Amino acid sequence: MFRCEGFATPAADQPLSPFSFDRRDVGERDVKIDILYCGVCHSDLHQARNDWQNTVYPCLPGHEIVGRVSAVGPAVTKFKVGDLAGVGCMVASCQNCPNCADGLEQYCDNGFVATYNGVEPQTGGTTFGGYSEAIVVDEGFTLRIPDKLDLAAVAPLLCAGITTYSPLRRWKVGPGQKVGIVGLGGLGHMGVKLAHAMGAHVVLFTTSPNKAEDARRLGADEVIVSTDPSQMDAHANSFDFILDCVAAEHDVNAYLNLLRRDGTMCQVGAPEKPLSVAAFSVIWKRRSFAGSLIGGIAETQEMLDFCAEHGITSDIEMIDIHDIEAAFARMLKSDVKYRFVIDMATLKGATQAA
Amino acid sequence: MFRCEGFATPAADQPLSPFSFDRRDVGERDVKIDILYCGVCHSDLHQARNDWQNTVYPCLPGHEIVGRVSAVGPAVTKFKVGDLAGVGCMVASCQNCPNCADGLEQYCDNGFVATYNGVEPQTGGTTFGGYSEAIVVDEGFTLRIPDKLDLAAVAPLLCAGITTYSPLRRWKVGPGQKVGIVGLGGLGHMGVKLAHAMGAHVVLFTTSPNKAEDARRLGADEVIVSTDPSQMDAHANSFDFILDCVAAEHDVNAYLNLLRRDGTMCQVGAPEKPLSVAAFSVIWKRRSFAGSLIGGIAETQEMLDFCAEHGITSDIEMIDIHDIEAAFARMLKSDVKYRFVIDMATLKGATQAA
Repeated sequence: MFRCEGFATPAADQPLSPFSFDRRDVGERDVKIDILYCGVCHSDLHQARNDWQNTVYPCLPGHEIVGRVSAVGPAVTKFKVGDLAGVGCMVASCQNCPNCADGLEQYCDNGFVATYNGVEPQTGGTTFGGYSEAIVVDEGFTLRIPDKLDLAAVAPLLCAGITTYSPLRRWKVGPGQKVGIVGLGGLGHMGVKLAHAMGAHVVLFTTSPNKAEDARRLGADEVIVSTDPSQMDAHANSFDFILDCVAAEHDVNAYLNLLRRDGTMCQVGAPEKPLSVAAFSVIWKRRSFAGSLIGGIAETQEMLDFCAEHGITSDIEMIDIHDIEAAFARMLKSDVKYRFVIDMATLKGATQAA
Repeated sequence: MFRCEGFATPAADQPLSPFSFDRRDVGERDVKIDILYCGVCHSDLHQARNDWQNTVYPCLPGHEIVGRVSAVGPAVTKFKVGDLAGVGCMVASCQNCPNCADGLEQYCDNGFVATYNGVEPQTGGTTFGGYSEAIVVDEGFTLRIPDKLDLAAVAPLLCAGITTYSPLRRWKVGPGQKVGIVGLGGLGHMGVKLAHAMGAHVVLFTTSPNKAEDARRLGADEVIVSTDPSQMDAHANSFDFILDCVAAEHDVNAYLNLLRRDGTMCQVGAPEKPLSVAAFSVIWKRRSFAGSLIGGIAETQEMLDFCAEHGITSDIEMIDIHDIEAAFARMLKSDVKYRFVIDMATLKGATQAA
């Protein structure tokens, strides 16, 4: 075990604050990563506040991790000391079920091990995430990070990037297709960039007319203000695929009705309350309402390589880890363009002060 | 025009009763069919009672029609006088849109013309359905009926048969797959027979334990009483495809959670109220909640040929057309195994009496 510094919270009603803890030593197949940047995902906030009633405290969030390899186990073949490396939402899975065999560890029949708030198979302890100086991860769950992109802006690709990339690939988005992205937040802005890079005609749906300019800058060919029925009606039965990135309550039927025959709308935002789906929204035109969860490790690597090839990163606001609670507060108001990323160099000052 | 006898209702609160009306003469591409049998679909009842607030009166229902050709237009090539012929839910479509071009007239972008309560393109009048002695239909919407099956029991294939066959084919149901059918009614009992004939392992979901024996006789390999959580839980993440034939309000999440990764649940029953779909029911395991509407003409012919090859018909109760209101009343109580079919020979007595 070695001592590690980070930011964690001891209870749902407590802010994140400096926290020292032990990580396991580097095992046979492990990679130790000194963390440079960690993205701030909405899940981090939900988990810290126990919104899903399953948080184990202390809780140390963070699953959009980019850093540099500082040690490797003797059986590691993918990485050497000094390499860039990344970790996303998963650090282990059973490796035995049909889904793991298909490289879709996120759907592991025995449940993947989350990067934080999971049960670490190597120790039986709770996993601690990326709001920390270093992490030790099995190389099978460690990603190679392209060196030609801005590293801080790469971090959100590990969750927001793969969450949008995977369904766009699964439903074969490409040239000649009209693709909708619902919501321009952390997920949605990646959806726009990625669908654009895949060659689709990209239409951004937003309730905020003032986001139109930004959407076009990010790659949207059209912007529809979803609260305007005439704009919506003009696009009825015309979309091949719609990626719904909205986590708030909203009417999915309004979007389902914009799909052409055999079109799919895929939910990646996760509204708390069930969504109301009219039977005829799917019966007419044989439409599908689907969902998708992050992506497998192989596909996450493919996404990172795709982003390197196309020069895609997240639009970010860099923060000092001291300001994480202020960032959480702004996220609750959707006041971020489009992802906060913690500069982990700021942690050292924090722990010295603690 | 020629005079035709049938059963129709003049208003939502009036029973069906004998009714004389004019049908168009046989045109270039038309086939006149003397109707032998007509199935009684739930839609007939909904339309007669104006449950969908779009009924044009008088309303003459019926879209599960089997009969014998008594006249053909000069351009007709598929039929000759004396042939068996059938008509399902559609009698015309635009023939110009991409969906019609793909042989999926049920999804016609300009709306297909329903066999009853539609606008007849040839006359501009309202279409009258199969509760009548004869019908005149464009040969492009007329089906060949195999002569080796019981004709009365073939009638329901034209709606209940194709409604279940089409999604089973679309989602490639076959050997090695575990397929669920929800509800053992007019649609569900066809779903069980067809999925069994396609070689799938068929599981029938029902709220009525006393339907188990019948389900097995029809081809179900297993029966799950859906109100028993322990039976449901035992099948979590195991289904390739589930066909939901229930038109009443019900919890679709309970079934979605039984799908394995990338599994689809398809709704063919059409509950009035929207269905409540939890985002995580589809996000976990990347599942889809889809819908399907009858089938195209080519696929309906394929289904009829498949049924002939496999000896499949509907389980029916034959009725006198005088008893149509009693049949409607029993349908409202789901008291039919599994489809009423009108013996149209009883119509002659009826109109003589009127």
